[in-house]
Amino acid sequence: MRVLLVGAGGVGGAITRIAARRPFFDAMVVADYDLSRAEAAVAALGDQGARFRAERLDANDQDAVVAALRAHECDVLLNATDPRFVLPLFRAARAAGANYLDMAMSLSRPHPDRPYEECGVKLGDAQFEDAAEWEKAGALALVGMGVEPGLSDVFARYAADELFDEIQEIGIRDGANLTVDGYDFAPSFSIWTTIEECLNPPVVYEADRGWFTTEPFSEPEVFEFPEGIGPVECVNVEHEEVLLVPRWVDAKRVTFKYGLGNEFIETLKTLHLLGLDRTEPVTVASASGPVAVSPRDVVAACLPDPATLGDRMRGKTCAGTWVRGTKDGEPREVYLYHVVDNEWSMAEYGSQAVVWQTAINPVIALELLATGAWTGSGVLGPEAFPAGPFLDLLTAYGSPWGLREQ
Amino acid sequence: MRVLLVGAGGVGGAITRIAARRPFFDAMVVADYDLSRAEAAVAALGDQGARFRAERLDANDQDAVVAALRAHECDVLLNATDPRFVLPLFRAARAAGANYLDMAMSLSRPHPDRPYEECGVKLGDAQFEDAAEWEKAGALALVGMGVEPGLSDVFARYAADELFDEIQEIGIRDGANLTVDGYDFAPSFSIWTTIEECLNPPVVYEADRGWFTTEPFSEPEVFEFPEGIGPVECVNVEHEEVLLVPRWVDAKRVTFKYGLGNEFIETLKTLHLLGLDRTEPVTVASASGPVAVSPRDVVAACLPDPATLGDRMRGKTCAGTWVRGTKDGEPREVYLYHVVDNEWSMAEYGSQAVVWQTAINPVIALELLATGAWTGSGVLGPEAFPAGPFLDLLTAYGSPWGLREQ
Repeated sequence: MRVLLVGAGGVGGAITRIAARRPFFDAMVVADYDLSRAEAAVAALGDQGARFRAERLDANDQDAVVAALRAHECDVLLNATDPRFVLPLFRAARAAGANYLDMAMSLSRPHPDRPYEECGVKLGDAQFEDAAEWEKAGALALVGMGVEPGLSDVFARYAADELFDEIQEIGIRDGANLTVDGYDFAPSFSIWTTIEECLNPPVVYEADRGWFTTEPFSEPEVFEFPEGIGPVECVNVEHEEVLLVPRWVDAKRVTFKYGLGNEFIETLKTLHLLGLDRTEPVTVASASGPVAVSPRDVVAACLPDPATLGDRMRGKTCAGTWVRGTKDGEPREVYLYHVVDNEWSMAEYGSQAVVWQTAINPVIALELLATGAWTGSGVLGPEAFPAGPFLDLLTAYGSPWGLREQ
Repeated sequence: MRVLLVGAGGVGGAITRIAARRPFFDAMVVADYDLSRAEAAVAALGDQGARFRAERLDANDQDAVVAALRAHECDVLLNATDPRFVLPLFRAARAAGANYLDMAMSLSRPHPDRPYEECGVKLGDAQFEDAAEWEKAGALALVGMGVEPGLSDVFARYAADELFDEIQEIGIRDGANLTVDGYDFAPSFSIWTTIEECLNPPVVYEADRGWFTTEPFSEPEVFEFPEGIGPVECVNVEHEEVLLVPRWVDAKRVTFKYGLGNEFIETLKTLHLLGLDRTEPVTVASASGPVAVSPRDVVAACLPDPATLGDRMRGKTCAGTWVRGTKDGEPREVYLYHVVDNEWSMAEYGSQAVVWQTAINPVIALELLATGAWTGSGVLGPEAFPAGPFLDLLTAYGSPWGLREQ
């Protein structure tokens, strides 16, 4: 297997560190808009970097991506950029005849008249539109293959196959007790993506109603996270699992709730109130005359890069899937989860917990595809594949998952 | 009198509309970085615009400002730009031998070690440093001559001369009940300046302690504003009056409190938390490659221009000076105030209330200088001059002030 990894940011860098320890692939080209970032990711691998090379690539330039896939004879493109670049990379992979993996799906657009009741364009719609074409070509686009979406979807499939006869609700629940020394406000994950997920109308699935939306930050609940994290207030957020899980798993209801905490929610609301969450450029003065910049990019530029904060972070992050249903005629409720302690991920990989937890999952998926444990064609979510081999390999990578009966 | 007005924004535009009705000056050159804005201000005067002409001018380019003052034989420069341009314009006026008026003073810098206890560089320090030079030349820099600072300082002088034998405290109190239809968040005054005033450490004066600072938003109090505005929560804010009043008026304590309201305070705190109040440029991507922009400029660019909101605004704004002391051995407490109803200022001048209220005061001051009712040299605040003629002219302009005994 020869991999073109696009994006050498926090997650991309962690992917190279995890993959470098695994023998299943022959070559990984690490490509970034900023060549120095790609070079730094490869240099950080030291002796383990022989199968890696750095390259400059603009993820938005579909022709350049096709050319890179062909030049390096890559059979798979792993997309580790932010969600703006999903479509050009997805299309470039198809055009070059390569398989494709990502960790977030093509972006949504709210319903023009009833944004907080009905879906407009849903997450991933633009990718699923091309499903027949991928299937016809016998090629695979494995979409939403990070931790959430990704591992959370694998947990949903595992619950349906192994733990339940009938499922009432599948609720992805994400929470952490991470703090960053020396910063009053320092998100542990891409603020661009966080704004996108949190300020878009959250999507909910119900079997008798289909997909629908609510007001942002709806249905707050306090969820008790395991391994000492404790109770965190969670709210509905737009997330891929709600779109993916119902396509392959039977459940009466699917939700995603994010443990943002009250201060963070208020901060996001203020950004929205001021229009600073917008991506459409505004014109401002600069030393070189008026320039057009995206307010959301400016917000991101004012905050520290989350990938660089690992040394100052403390605490654990938890991703997981809570499932309520019946087994053998009895009610059952479980939480399947994966916790990463920042101290461990920094010591073991030099990566902070949140980006490391995202990065391990696409590497496992690549290995399952390389060994043939997972096969398929079309545009498929992680829950389209058997969960057992994935969860076994997660444990084998040194990062076990947990199950809490409740 | 020939005037160079620099800045044709909201306040500059209102200045031209007010001045156009008064015969005391011969010519007013309306200069702006954006020529179309200056031209629009002059065009809006219609038949009344014969004494006005528009010109392009960069307020930051001291040589160009000197050249403009000389070319048009202006004897006074009226600065209606934001406070970043105070020093180049102040210096250009001195270099050209012109008098100078502004409505905000040179910027402060917090104390490097004890920002919330001691003053660093104070508002106006850089201007007062040059006072001897102005005095020697027999030239006048009348600083802080808007509404606050400006009319509020005139009120302080009036109270000291006419209403009190001894003054315990002079507290400037500013409040409004303005709303803007169709916007969830739309400040009625320059957000750049509002951030500057509100997030800098507030300064307080006490006779036995001198000037000192506190934490932002300190000493909240509910002040009852007149003419139906009612109670508004006010907090300490850095403002010029606290630096100006004690130089010419005896008082045991001088404060400035701004009726920001809780939502606005929380919004400003969030901007600060995220570093979006900063003026130092950050680098962000743009369609034309990486560019350096000031986050605070981006915040301003995301919000509607307050000068354009008059048609959607409702309510009144109040500026005033609360004074507590003794007269003839008896305790006395008064609030001297000036209220502008947006409906009135829009109907009468086509200017929204807050910018109109700022603009009328420098025009009155120019008229008092033109007629010789006010004379002086050096760097002087409004309280250095007799208050009576100013307050009479304010009423004669059709915008009376009030006095509330309390």
